[in-house]
Amino acid sequence: MAELRKDPMTRRWAIIATERMKRPHDLVKKDGVEKAERPCPFESGSEELSAATVYPHFKDPEKYKIRVVANKFPALSYKGMPKTTVKGPFTTIEAVGGHEVFIDSEDHSARLMTMKPIEFAAILNSYRERYKFWVEDQRVKYVLIFKNYGQEAGASLEHPHSQLAATPVVPPRVVEEMEKGERHYKDHKRCILCDLIRDEIALGERVAMMNDRFIVICPFASRVPFETMILPREHASSFTEVSDSDIESLADIMAKLFNRIGTLLDDPAYNYMLHVAPQYSPNLRFYHWHIEIIPRLTEMAGFEWGAGVYINPTPPEDAARDLSS
Amino acid sequence: MAELRKDPMTRRWAIIATERMKRPHDLVKKDGVEKAERPCPFESGSEELSAATVYPHFKDPEKYKIRVVANKFPALSYKGMPKTTVKGPFTTIEAVGGHEVFIDSEDHSARLMTMKPIEFAAILNSYRERYKFWVEDQRVKYVLIFKNYGQEAGASLEHPHSQLAATPVVPPRVVEEMEKGERHYKDHKRCILCDLIRDEIALGERVAMMNDRFIVICPFASRVPFETMILPREHASSFTEVSDSDIESLADIMAKLFNRIGTLLDDPAYNYMLHVAPQYSPNLRFYHWHIEIIPRLTEMAGFEWGAGVYINPTPPEDAARDLSS
Repeated sequence: MAELRKDPMTRRWAIIATERMKRPHDLVKKDGVEKAERPCPFESGSEELSAATVYPHFKDPEKYKIRVVANKFPALSYKGMPKTTVKGPFTTIEAVGGHEVFIDSEDHSARLMTMKPIEFAAILNSYRERYKFWVEDQRVKYVLIFKNYGQEAGASLEHPHSQLAATPVVPPRVVEEMEKGERHYKDHKRCILCDLIRDEIALGERVAMMNDRFIVICPFASRVPFETMILPREHASSFTEVSDSDIESLADIMAKLFNRIGTLLDDPAYNYMLHVAPQYSPNLRFYHWHIEIIPRLTEMAGFEWGAGVYINPTPPEDAARDLSS
Repeated sequence: MAELRKDPMTRRWAIIATERMKRPHDLVKKDGVEKAERPCPFESGSEELSAATVYPHFKDPEKYKIRVVANKFPALSYKGMPKTTVKGPFTTIEAVGGHEVFIDSEDHSARLMTMKPIEFAAILNSYRERYKFWVEDQRVKYVLIFKNYGQEAGASLEHPHSQLAATPVVPPRVVEEMEKGERHYKDHKRCILCDLIRDEIALGERVAMMNDRFIVICPFASRVPFETMILPREHASSFTEVSDSDIESLADIMAKLFNRIGTLLDDPAYNYMLHVAPQYSPNLRFYHWHIEIIPRLTEMAGFEWGAGVYINPTPPEDAARDLSS
C-alpha cells in the first residue's frame, strides 16, 4: 500500500508510491512519452488495455465521448481506510482514495489548441460528474483534477487525458490559499479573489481575456512565463455547483485561451490544476475556485527548489497583452 | 530593475527578471545547455567573456582555482535599495542584492561524480568566503547558494558552476523550516534536526552514509527518488562558522556521495541547495544548516504543482540502502 508521509520540518507531504515502484535502472532511462505504445490503451476499441472504466460514456449533443478509467498504476488505493500512524516525528497516512484518468478525446493526436468549445464542455462535464461521485466518499478530504500535456509536463502517455486524485488530506497548496482567504474574509468580510478580480479589472493590465461569466488573469506574481488563472467572476467555491451554462461559458474561454497559448508558444507543454474547496466544506464564502495553468517553457532550477521563489523572465503584463491581442 | 513580487494569496514570491526578459519567440525554442558556445565564458583564458570577477583566485594547497564572477544576467541587481511598494493587494520589493556564479572547476567537462575531495573542499571554501562577504551587506536578508547540474536541472551552461543569490527577503522555504524549528525548540528545548539525526541513526533505515562530522539522510518524506540531505552532526546554524577541518570532512562525504549517485544513476542532472540561517541572525539554536540534493530523474507534473504533494516512486529506505552499499 502506498503511503502519504508528512515531512517533519515543513508542510510538505509525499506519496511513496509503491504501486509505481522504481529502482535505479528504471530511473536512468528518462520516462518519455510512450509514442511507440501500440495500440494506445486509451484508443476506442482498446478498452481492455486500460484499467476498469469508472464512468460510462457521456454523450453530449454531438455524441462526443469521454471515458473515465481507473489509473493502472494508482498513487492512491481505492480500498482500505486512511489509517494514520505516528512514530516519533514521522507521520504516515495510508494513501487511500482514488486515482482516475479522463480520456479527453477519442482522437489520439488531438491537441488542446485546436479543440472546439463543445469538446471542452464535454471534458468539464465529466469533471463535474466525478467531483459529484467523490463527494459521497467519507474517507476522502480532497479531490484534485489536473492535466499533464506534453512530456516536459510529466505526461507519460501521448493520448490526451486528464487525471483525478482523491486524497485523504487537503493539499498544502490549497490549505495555504484557504488560510489567507479566511484571514482576508475575517478582516474585510469579502472574498480575497472577488476583491482581486475587481482590482484586476480596474487596472486592466493583467486581464488576458474575459466573457460574461469568466475572467483569465496573468497573476501579479506569475511563477512562469504565460502563467494564467481562470476564475468565475461570481463567487463560487466548488465545481459541483457549476451550471450547464457556466460550463458552456468556461468551455468557450478555454478554447480561446488554449488556442492563443498554442499559437503564441508553438503548442507548448503545460499543466493545469483545478483548485476547489475541500469535499467536507464545499460552500465557503472565503474560497473561490479557479484553474491554474502553468506552461512548461522553463526549467525549475536550484533557486526555485531552494527558495520557493520563482525567477520569471516574462512580466505578466506582457503576457496578458500578448494573450489578449 | 527586476522586481520581487509577493503573491496576494499565498506565501509565494516571484522575481520578475527584466534583465533576462523573454518574449514568446525566445521561449518557444527551449533553453538548452549551450554546448556550442565557444569559447566557453568560464574557461581559463576567456575571463573577458564573463562578467566581472568578484572573488579572486583562491589557491588551495594544490593550486586549485575557484573564480567567482557576477552573473551576466542577474536576477537581482547589485545597485540600489530594496524599496517596498504596496498598492492594494500587490506588494513589490525592488530585486536588489546580488547574483554570482562560482566557476567550480577549470575543467570544462569535469563531472561532479569524479571530482576529488580536495576539489570539493576548494568549492566549499569559496562558498564560505562569499557568505562572509555578504554578511556585511545590510540590504540583504538571505544568501542562497545552489547548483544546477545538467540541462534538466536548469543549467544553461555546461561548464561546472554553482550560483549565489543574495535576496532582500528570507525565502519562504527557509521561513517554513524556521517556524517549525522554533516551535519545536519552544516545546522541547532542542533543535528539530539534532533530534531527527538522533532518531535516524537509531532507526538506521534512511542513513545513506556518515563520517565523524557529517551524515547523509534520505528524508522520510523524500520528494523525488534519491533525494538526500547532508547535515553536520553537531548543531550549527550558519556556514560562516564552519572550520577548515569541517570543510575537509564535508568534502570527503560529498565526493563519496556524488560518486555513488553518479554511478547508480548514470551521472544524472540534479540541483543542490544550502539552507542556512538568515544573515541577520546567523546563530540560532533552533535552525540547523544543511544541504538538500534533488536528482532530476522525474518530471514535476500537475499533481505536484497543484497539491504541493510529491509522488515519489522510490522509497527513501531503498535509496539509502542503494547509496550505502
